[in-house]
Amino acid sequence: MIKTQKYIQENKDLFLDDLKALLRIPSVSADPTFKKDVKDAAKAVAKLLKGAGLKKVKINKTKGHPIVYGERIVDKNLPTVLIYGHYDVQPADPIDLWDTPPFEPTIKKTKNHPQGAVFARGAADDKGQVLMHVQAVKAMIATKELPCNVKFMIEGEEEVGSIHLGIFCKANRKQLACDVVLISDTSIIGNKTPSITVGLRGLSYVEVEVVGPNRDLHSGVYGGAVANPINILAKMIAQLHDKNNKITIPGFYDDVKNYAKAERAALNKAPFSETKYKKDLQIKEVFGEKGYTTIERTGIRPTLDVNGIWGGYIGEGAKTVLPSAAFAKISMRLVSNQDPAKITKDFTKYFKSLAPKSVKVKVTPHHGGHPAVTPIDSKEYRAAEAAMKKTFKKDVIPQMGGGSIPIVALFEQVLKVNVVLMGFGLDSDVIHSPNEHYGLFNYYRGIETIPYFFEQYCS
Amino acid sequence: MIKTQKYIQENKDLFLDDLKALLRIPSVSADPTFKKDVKDAAKAVAKLLKGAGLKKVKINKTKGHPIVYGERIVDKNLPTVLIYGHYDVQPADPIDLWDTPPFEPTIKKTKNHPQGAVFARGAADDKGQVLMHVQAVKAMIATKELPCNVKFMIEGEEEVGSIHLGIFCKANRKQLACDVVLISDTSIIGNKTPSITVGLRGLSYVEVEVVGPNRDLHSGVYGGAVANPINILAKMIAQLHDKNNKITIPGFYDDVKNYAKAERAALNKAPFSETKYKKDLQIKEVFGEKGYTTIERTGIRPTLDVNGIWGGYIGEGAKTVLPSAAFAKISMRLVSNQDPAKITKDFTKYFKSLAPKSVKVKVTPHHGGHPAVTPIDSKEYRAAEAAMKKTFKKDVIPQMGGGSIPIVALFEQVLKVNVVLMGFGLDSDVIHSPNEHYGLFNYYRGIETIPYFFEQYCS
Repeated sequence: MIKTQKYIQENKDLFLDDLKALLRIPSVSADPTFKKDVKDAAKAVAKLLKGAGLKKVKINKTKGHPIVYGERIVDKNLPTVLIYGHYDVQPADPIDLWDTPPFEPTIKKTKNHPQGAVFARGAADDKGQVLMHVQAVKAMIATKELPCNVKFMIEGEEEVGSIHLGIFCKANRKQLACDVVLISDTSIIGNKTPSITVGLRGLSYVEVEVVGPNRDLHSGVYGGAVANPINILAKMIAQLHDKNNKITIPGFYDDVKNYAKAERAALNKAPFSETKYKKDLQIKEVFGEKGYTTIERTGIRPTLDVNGIWGGYIGEGAKTVLPSAAFAKISMRLVSNQDPAKITKDFTKYFKSLAPKSVKVKVTPHHGGHPAVTPIDSKEYRAAEAAMKKTFKKDVIPQMGGGSIPIVALFEQVLKVNVVLMGFGLDSDVIHSPNEHYGLFNYYRGIETIPYFFEQYCS
Repeated sequence: MIKTQKYIQENKDLFLDDLKALLRIPSVSADPTFKKDVKDAAKAVAKLLKGAGLKKVKINKTKGHPIVYGERIVDKNLPTVLIYGHYDVQPADPIDLWDTPPFEPTIKKTKNHPQGAVFARGAADDKGQVLMHVQAVKAMIATKELPCNVKFMIEGEEEVGSIHLGIFCKANRKQLACDVVLISDTSIIGNKTPSITVGLRGLSYVEVEVVGPNRDLHSGVYGGAVANPINILAKMIAQLHDKNNKITIPGFYDDVKNYAKAERAALNKAPFSETKYKKDLQIKEVFGEKGYTTIERTGIRPTLDVNGIWGGYIGEGAKTVLPSAAFAKISMRLVSNQDPAKITKDFTKYFKSLAPKSVKVKVTPHHGGHPAVTPIDSKEYRAAEAAMKKTFKKDVIPQMGGGSIPIVALFEQVLKVNVVLMGFGLDSDVIHSPNEHYGLFNYYRGIETIPYFFEQYCS
């Protein structure tokens, strides 16, 4: 890969320009306002794939946002690596907390990125990480060093639950046939501490609505005599955790693996400083399920978070209203064998049971995803480990990730292959938050590492 | 008052036009966007007062919205009635729930108003009720039947806690000297069941903020390990009531009067149908403090309601965010000798004590008001009772009101006179809610009744 690496060093500026151009497109998949932009992003990705030398590049329509496909078949007898990623991004709200506009990529230095980072929504999640693969493959094709077949499948609905990807995969099993799926949509522990995510939590996401009286009421006239949906919703949410911060939904932990002492000890060996963690977030105390460490709480334990809540008067000043309804978005991160469909059903039943007769409760499921774990003794894991060791010159740590990529379990089920999660972001890149960014070091390091994965895996 | 009543009958259309014109001005005092409109409403009121024949009409500047004054002195030796009201209105949110635009007054018939009602923000609270006095006094002056002195003080900050009225009253004690304050800003039980409000609840209104991490986080990466401000806020709110729906703030009930059995029995004699009440609001059950009836819960018992809540992602679709902060607006209705300043202090201390170390809590008081009770054996109560009996031809019921007019206690303290709450609205007029309206019957009945109050009181 000598020629490939030389090509990469010579084209760094161009690679950065490509990233900036893609980040300028506000491809927010959750919000219908941005539908055209999501489409534009798909077109831009297709153009980049063609520019990299991929064949059969196509923007596949779905009932939602399109899926971009491209491939380069070197030899049918050689292995095939399928690269998955997404070009859609999270909403940029709250926009007023961004120091620079979310869709005007800006290079700034940070403590963790002394060489600079690109600030923009989607920089790390996942446009920057998708482009690493495009550029790495481009370099290998240009230098004739691509050692095996490669396919790209870049979707536009990851942030809304990959709604139509499952159907697409099932309908196109032949075209997508491969030996491994390679994904960069996760983090490393630090720029001097490479790691590979071997476990991902699943997800159940619901929206709840608590309805009281048929109209907003004057709290002076009716307050104290009519159930206030906000008070009730607060009480219901409060009951979802017990005093040890365990989730109270009956049967919730039934399919959660209890890790042995030795396994937990191994997991807790990952470098982690609670002091630094608290300082970074400016919190006095961590907070979570009793009896588990922060690493365990975010890796091997399921959780329940309210992601949004609203109801009543939320404008300036005071309004003495007893509102007709209150709302919340609630998500649960799942582990081990927890089934998102079952958990959503159990949640719904339990949540409704918490309501007094005075209100009506509606639960709408948003989307879900199965938990997933990658075996570390597999050929693909070892290839990723070796590739990272080569560029980082450090031992690579297998890590349990807290986030969810619902599609991982689906790939394993439909395409019958293992998935490798070789991501290059940092947790401090604040994905999903204002001022998301992606380190230039990480972008280039990813581009440099990916060819070694191909070399190792296809040898 | 024969000539006065004849004048009123002949000028009904004109009286309605005046009301519509005033309702077209969006004088929302809580929202700085409407500052100029509030000023315009003050000017319109001043013009109406002049048109009614009042003298020394003046728009008095304050540090907030202006106070309109006007007077008609018949004879210094005669009694003086001070009429108080407000020309500011509640915000119209949520605007999309209005059937007709909130500031385009529209006449429509309703079940409770078969003769029609004016639909507009402020129709019943309080522009319609203020204008009844202007028109009644206009009729008495025009027909030379005004039997005593009258003063008007119409403010523009009632909906935001009458912030500057106290200072104005204290600074202008001489000008405001009077024998009674007459206010129409309350309801009657029904158009065939006249009543006078003899008790009003006080108010303590606060805004709370629960802050966790210094930025919005990805709930997959941090969820379960970092305190989620929404979950915490919900838990804190849930703890403000016990299982019997009693408020848990230590000392909260210390100054609440325990009514004797006989007093409670008398109070519960007011006509009230729980079936109708539930049907009107489309609720299956009423909900409140154990051991008290709906009439008691809204009349003689203090309450705590969340008036608004917000935090995290509240847009379309799903966003897996663990937000940095969550907010709520919380108000308490106070009774008997509860002191709003003490209650706000007690709430703040208790609420902060409910938070785990992992979050920071801020409590900002909005405004407060003392509870108030009018003696029913007073000359002024009897005058109001006689006036209503004359026009309604029914016995008048003394009623405990749930709402708060913070200024009532202040008038009693500063001006050293009693206050009579002779309102003509209906609870079903949905003040503070979308589709607020005021019955034409009620508007005209108010204008007809007020001259009889003057006749009775000044005789």
